[in-house]
Amino acid sequence: MPQPDLADALARLRARGPLVHNITNYVVMNTTANALLAIGASPAMVHALPEAAAFAPLAQALVINIGTLSPAWVEAMEQAAAAANAAGVPWILDPVAAGATAYRSDASKRLLALGPAIVRGNASEIMALAGDTGAAGKGVDSTEGSDAARAAARALAAQTRCVVAVTGAIDYVTDGTRMTGIANGDPMLSRVTGTGCAATALCGAFLGAGLPAFDAAIAGLAAIGVAAEKAVATANGPGSFQVALIDALYTLDGATLAAGANLR
Amino acid sequence: MPQPDLADALARLRARGPLVHNITNYVVMNTTANALLAIGASPAMVHALPEAAAFAPLAQALVINIGTLSPAWVEAMEQAAAAANAAGVPWILDPVAAGATAYRSDASKRLLALGPAIVRGNASEIMALAGDTGAAGKGVDSTEGSDAARAAARALAAQTRCVVAVTGAIDYVTDGTRMTGIANGDPMLSRVTGTGCAATALCGAFLGAGLPAFDAAIAGLAAIGVAAEKAVATANGPGSFQVALIDALYTLDGATLAAGANLR
Amino acid sequence: MPQPDLADALARLRARGPLVHNITNYVVMNTTANALLAIGASPAMVHALPEAAAFAPLAQALVINIGTLSPAWVEAMEQAAAAANAAGVPWILDPVAAGATAYRSDASKRLLALGPAIVRGNASEIMALAGDTGAAGKGVDSTEGSDAARAAARALAAQTRCVVAVTGAIDYVTDGTRMTGIANGDPMLSRVTGTGCAATALCGAFLGAGLPAFDAAIAGLAAIGVAAEKAVATANGPGSFQVALIDALYTLDGATLAAGANLR
Repeated sequence: MPQPDLADALARLRARGPLVHNITNYVVMNTTANALLAIGASPAMVHALPEAAAFAPLAQALVINIGTLSPAWVEAMEQAAAAANAAGVPWILDPVAAGATAYRSDASKRLLALGPAIVRGNASEIMALAGDTGAAGKGVDSTEGSDAARAAARALAAQTRCVVAVTGAIDYVTDGTRMTGIANGDPMLSRVTGTGCAATALCGAFLGAGLPAFDAAIAGLAAIGVAAEKAVATANGPGSFQVALIDALYTLDGATLAAGANLR
Repeated sequence: MPQPDLADALARLRARGPLVHNITNYVVMNTTANALLAIGASPAMVHALPEAAAFAPLAQALVINIGTLSPAWVEAMEQAAAAANAAGVPWILDPVAAGATAYRSDASKRLLALGPAIVRGNASEIMALAGDTGAAGKGVDSTEGSDAARAAARALAAQTRCVVAVTGAIDYVTDGTRMTGIANGDPMLSRVTGTGCAATALCGAFLGAGLPAFDAAIAGLAAIGVAAEKAVATANGPGSFQVALIDALYTLDGATLAAGANLR
Repeated sequence: MPQPDLADALARLRARGPLVHNITNYVVMNTTANALLAIGASPAMVHALPEAAAFAPLAQALVINIGTLSPAWVEAMEQAAAAANAAGVPWILDPVAAGATAYRSDASKRLLALGPAIVRGNASEIMALAGDTGAAGKGVDSTEGSDAARAAARALAAQTRCVVAVTGAIDYVTDGTRMTGIANGDPMLSRVTGTGCAATALCGAFLGAGLPAFDAAIAGLAAIGVAAEKAVATANGPGSFQVALIDALYTLDGATLAAGANLR
């Protein structure tokens, strides 16, 4: 299967410097903004109900992450997604801990119904969204066997007509027909909070660079995976890894990304 | 007095990988989650009123920190604490800046009445809770003479029947009868925001590992104190210290913790 | 034109250790608090409506940053500003992304009418406040030609009788009559989120140290600019730069600040 030209994707992102509108959780706002700045995008964190819908059409992509929800935020997310749709701005949904509480599952399903270009989650989140009752409530980092996760991702993509990215030891991206694996990254990613959220935001940045959703998801996950491999080589633990990951996203060049990406 | 087996405590924490539910302040959410991940726990930051009470029983421990309050959050904290009590999930209270405003003092007292396993604060916070009018409003880092702080901690513990940890140059943990000092740490801890909040969360992680409250408080404070001593040795200032502290929590082993802890 | 004695300003700040009350955005709360701790101030992040006005008079300076607004927060900002005015506590306004949405422009104008000692923004924010329709909606990092920005800053200062600081490749501080440029810093500052917010907070810290507003703005901008020049020398990218910047603020001494500041 032909794979996206990742060097070209990164060059396009940096040439365009897309404004990425984020409605994301409090835990990761700072690190997400820094990951977007490092890769070459221009982040804006705008979640308030009186302005979220007004801001979305100004951006080249919208990232909606439900990590820390409240009723006013869910409403702002729905309004921003609708405004993005109306303006032709592509958006990505990160259904953090969907399945862990009814509140999160409900919010995820309402947002999913609005038609994101990409959904990015871990195995338990994607399985919860796909209606698989095998997903259980172990926080935000649960994983399941990758076969079940892949099947859930494919089913969800086919059902919703959006691209689904399920991340784990190997990440998979599917549009319901095609399925590409990305075998990059490092276990240290799971010892730093917000790396999954940053991965989602990077996929959003590639959406904002004009890539098709399937290619944008692959590019975003490959970028953080290749950067993580570089970062872990100099890290003494998760603190220095988090710092080195931002440095590695900043210094990542197209040739390194294309050569390092282990797509299958 | 026999002291807790800190090497065994850390081994238990890492074997169990407890899910720690945090309702904490915006300033430290990221660094608290990373401290918990580094020590080996699994953090979840869930504060919204529609889900806080539903989530608390899923966790092995609950951390409530009032650093950035709002009316909806206080209600979520109370509901989560009640749900944790009903489910037998131990919880810890960090009464940030209690005494600085009436709003904080009131919220602290309402939460305290719900029966946390541990209260962790600095001298002025613990003195404010103990009804000592000597505590004044110099932000969130005030300290008082350690004799007065120890007396306030002992009185508060006796009155509330919970373990009280008062931190400062030397930390003290008391259940109203026993009193253990922990003489670790470094002044650099006070030049990085959120290290007290991280200490509270680490105590919560040891609660979630199944330790009795008195031992959990000692273990959490010893862990951050020993890690801080290691971190400061390589730091060039508070920025690199914050990074090195997370690395040090991650690389901390039981033997180093047991040997390094200066309990008295 | 005589310039402020920056070595003396820094010595005063560290001697006084001013309590700086911040109502700032979620993205930068942690890094702002750490910048204030590093320079020698004592930060408190207190934004809740039930306590913001009660807390403001306890501080030596108040920082209001509209990066992430909501209706309740705008009300808390207005109450805190009024309470600060009544108590003689100087305050600084950071009108983040004013001009990008009507909501932000309105909030900025309402706060501006309450009389801050300093307004610190980038060119597009200051131009939006000055009523210049040339400011457009490219996120929070827009820049315009420095001539136009300086003219807007001078007009805004003359109209509002507060000191206006407009930051960019060269920063300018004006009270409507005087105009001082600060040619320090590094382009890497624009690749880390929240450095502008930190600059505002540092100006607030110098206000809290008792400096006149014009001098405080120059001192705050010179401090972060000189620190950034030191930090970039050891950084491998924006991640390590962010860490090194905090270290550099901590290790900055008066002689280095005075010698390094490029005032014009």
